[in-house]
Amino acid sequence: MARLNDNYLKLQAGYLFPEISRRVNEFTSANPGVEIIRLGIGDVTKPLVPEVLKAFHAGVDDMAAEQSFHGYGPEQGYSWLAQTIIDKAYKPLGVELETSEVFISDGSKCDSANILDIFDLSCKVAIGDPVYPVYNDTNVMVGRTGAADENGYYEGIVYMPCTEENGFTPQFPAEKVDIIYLCFPNNPTGTVASKEQLKGWVDYARANDAVILFDAAYEAFITEAGIPHSIYEIDGAKECAIEFRSFSKTAGFTGVRCGLTVVPHALAGTTASGEKVSFNQLWNRRQCTKFNGVSYPVQKAAAAVYSDAGWAQVKEVIDYYMGNAAIIRKGLQAAGITCYGGVNAPYIWLKTPGGMTSWDFFDKLLNECHVVGTPGSGFGPSGEGYFRLSAFGDRANVETAVQRIVEKWGK
Amino acid sequence: MARLNDNYLKLQAGYLFPEISRRVNEFTSANPGVEIIRLGIGDVTKPLVPEVLKAFHAGVDDMAAEQSFHGYGPEQGYSWLAQTIIDKAYKPLGVELETSEVFISDGSKCDSANILDIFDLSCKVAIGDPVYPVYNDTNVMVGRTGAADENGYYEGIVYMPCTEENGFTPQFPAEKVDIIYLCFPNNPTGTVASKEQLKGWVDYARANDAVILFDAAYEAFITEAGIPHSIYEIDGAKECAIEFRSFSKTAGFTGVRCGLTVVPHALAGTTASGEKVSFNQLWNRRQCTKFNGVSYPVQKAAAAVYSDAGWAQVKEVIDYYMGNAAIIRKGLQAAGITCYGGVNAPYIWLKTPGGMTSWDFFDKLLNECHVVGTPGSGFGPSGEGYFRLSAFGDRANVETAVQRIVEKWGK
Repeated sequence: MARLNDNYLKLQAGYLFPEISRRVNEFTSANPGVEIIRLGIGDVTKPLVPEVLKAFHAGVDDMAAEQSFHGYGPEQGYSWLAQTIIDKAYKPLGVELETSEVFISDGSKCDSANILDIFDLSCKVAIGDPVYPVYNDTNVMVGRTGAADENGYYEGIVYMPCTEENGFTPQFPAEKVDIIYLCFPNNPTGTVASKEQLKGWVDYARANDAVILFDAAYEAFITEAGIPHSIYEIDGAKECAIEFRSFSKTAGFTGVRCGLTVVPHALAGTTASGEKVSFNQLWNRRQCTKFNGVSYPVQKAAAAVYSDAGWAQVKEVIDYYMGNAAIIRKGLQAAGITCYGGVNAPYIWLKTPGGMTSWDFFDKLLNECHVVGTPGSGFGPSGEGYFRLSAFGDRANVETAVQRIVEKWGK
Repeated sequence: MARLNDNYLKLQAGYLFPEISRRVNEFTSANPGVEIIRLGIGDVTKPLVPEVLKAFHAGVDDMAAEQSFHGYGPEQGYSWLAQTIIDKAYKPLGVELETSEVFISDGSKCDSANILDIFDLSCKVAIGDPVYPVYNDTNVMVGRTGAADENGYYEGIVYMPCTEENGFTPQFPAEKVDIIYLCFPNNPTGTVASKEQLKGWVDYARANDAVILFDAAYEAFITEAGIPHSIYEIDGAKECAIEFRSFSKTAGFTGVRCGLTVVPHALAGTTASGEKVSFNQLWNRRQCTKFNGVSYPVQKAAAAVYSDAGWAQVKEVIDYYMGNAAIIRKGLQAAGITCYGGVNAPYIWLKTPGGMTSWDFFDKLLNECHVVGTPGSGFGPSGEGYFRLSAFGDRANVETAVQRIVEKWGK
């Protein structure tokens, strides 16, 4: 039989969300009729906004006539969408990009996974802890690690704990690394990095010849002035960083699928013989050979997000979700529960009361408040004792959930 | 600087379609006003059919209201789409599948590239020549080969020449291989494999512990009875084959993006220690970690392809294209040019008159008939002296192109 990639077998079987489903199903079977409020998985709940719907329909209509039909599009995405993103999402930050540096894709999950294709297997990788599991798991799958230890740390990966003590911002790795994953606003902790902190990372990466993989999927949720929305707001970042962005949370595209990756021309890597080659050239080749572009009507819908009317509508939904976040924060604080995030991100990262484990708190919240959240330990060992609540729910449900938490713990 | 994957640098720079564009642009600049007829790249030209458009719009409408909104869908695709495909595209062939064996994706190009993720790098690969370049290039990119020789053959890949002598059906490799790419109806030659020929491959794969990667992207264009549409029509194929299918050519989805991959539960590979593991389990993990499902409205549109009304409309478009194919074949034969394909596939593979090279014929056809096609040598060394014409054009253009060819060569 053909040999399979047995790096996959190093992955731990019990993935977070299936285990949550299992416990929720067990509860609902035992308690029929009890209504559960879900503030767990980070999926949006509000419909697409009218301007996006209008453009999406218009895109489908284009496919109805020979003269306006669109067959294969550019693997990199249509340049009118890339240009719109540059004009509306980057230029206002003072960031200049060329359309050939912006690659439209079907989502930043795919891109943040596929990006490893263009790096040599010998590259040493640093990731946060807690972290979005895709960064970790894709490195395991590609064979960059040994087995996991009892904490779930894989041999060969440099983990950067993000804790209350360091304000959930990782320290620079002590050993030499080649690839550094950063995610701000952060999933799961909801914390952000200041310009000074990001400058520290850019300087560090340049001094150490490392590449930063910067996940900015939640940048649209930043409410405070002065917090960077893009790594390219930092001088020198184009020489050391790739940035991922997404329409998923920004515009409710989790089921529509559109994201983008910026690979600046200035970002180079080295070959075995020490020659410098642009990563942009490699990623372009990767996308041309292994990808066939994003659905044309989806790209039309994505462009409408950045129309004046579209952005006003999208912003209203974001404000709604951030209103939920404020309610959750206030309620938790009223209940005497320490929490982080929720100001510049749609996630609230709470410290479990009384030092409970993440899963014990999960069970208590489910059984006694009928609220589902996400155990922090599911995002990595440093998440133990923490818990993630998402602000993407319905207002009335959020209010009820918070009320139950306050009644339970606030006294 | 971080080390990049320099396997990419082994790829030959001059890719086929950019070189075609360059020559066409050169011609049009020198000959302004001359109308070019393009029968080159295999892209469809007809609009989506009404039933598909209706379902696509309905899918977008679902995204307009909270109760019908769809966020993250299953990474494997919606089971209602998988079930529809099983019922309408596989059951009529006598093939039974479970929905957990059918993975919906954004296209078979992506899947036929990404599938390599789940195989060990040590696997020996056999591919046809001429061939769809993605099979070859993705193996180079992943590091399974050495450099290319002067023919464009990469060290480490077993090439299976498909020539007039063997009816464009490859011979079994002489050396032991682990992965065999087969594409029927074939791109670029337009030829098909009989049940007996496919049975030979299934028996060979099972006897040699190899996995067949079967690309059936053009199965909907088969017009003759008795030609297999799926490898699973052959007994035992579920133990040795993965099948790729696409809505691209079948239903004009080249710009919409939807395909599927079947990974049967019965198909196993081995670990380093000789343990048997199902490839389905690995592909499922791959898709869950590196992919986030296909756009919901696109899946709704894809399901409509298999409604009774949808299929009747889609079939009409396929018949139109196959009508073009018949006109091209007839014209070439009238001009005394030997050709293959075009009966069960939308491609016609012609032998260049007078033994011209593929590129010489390209230039002659462009300069003297103002028709663009694809040089066979671009698909591999055994394509030298051949030329691909696509049937996806407009009828009037096809007729004009054929008339010019007949006037030029038929005497």
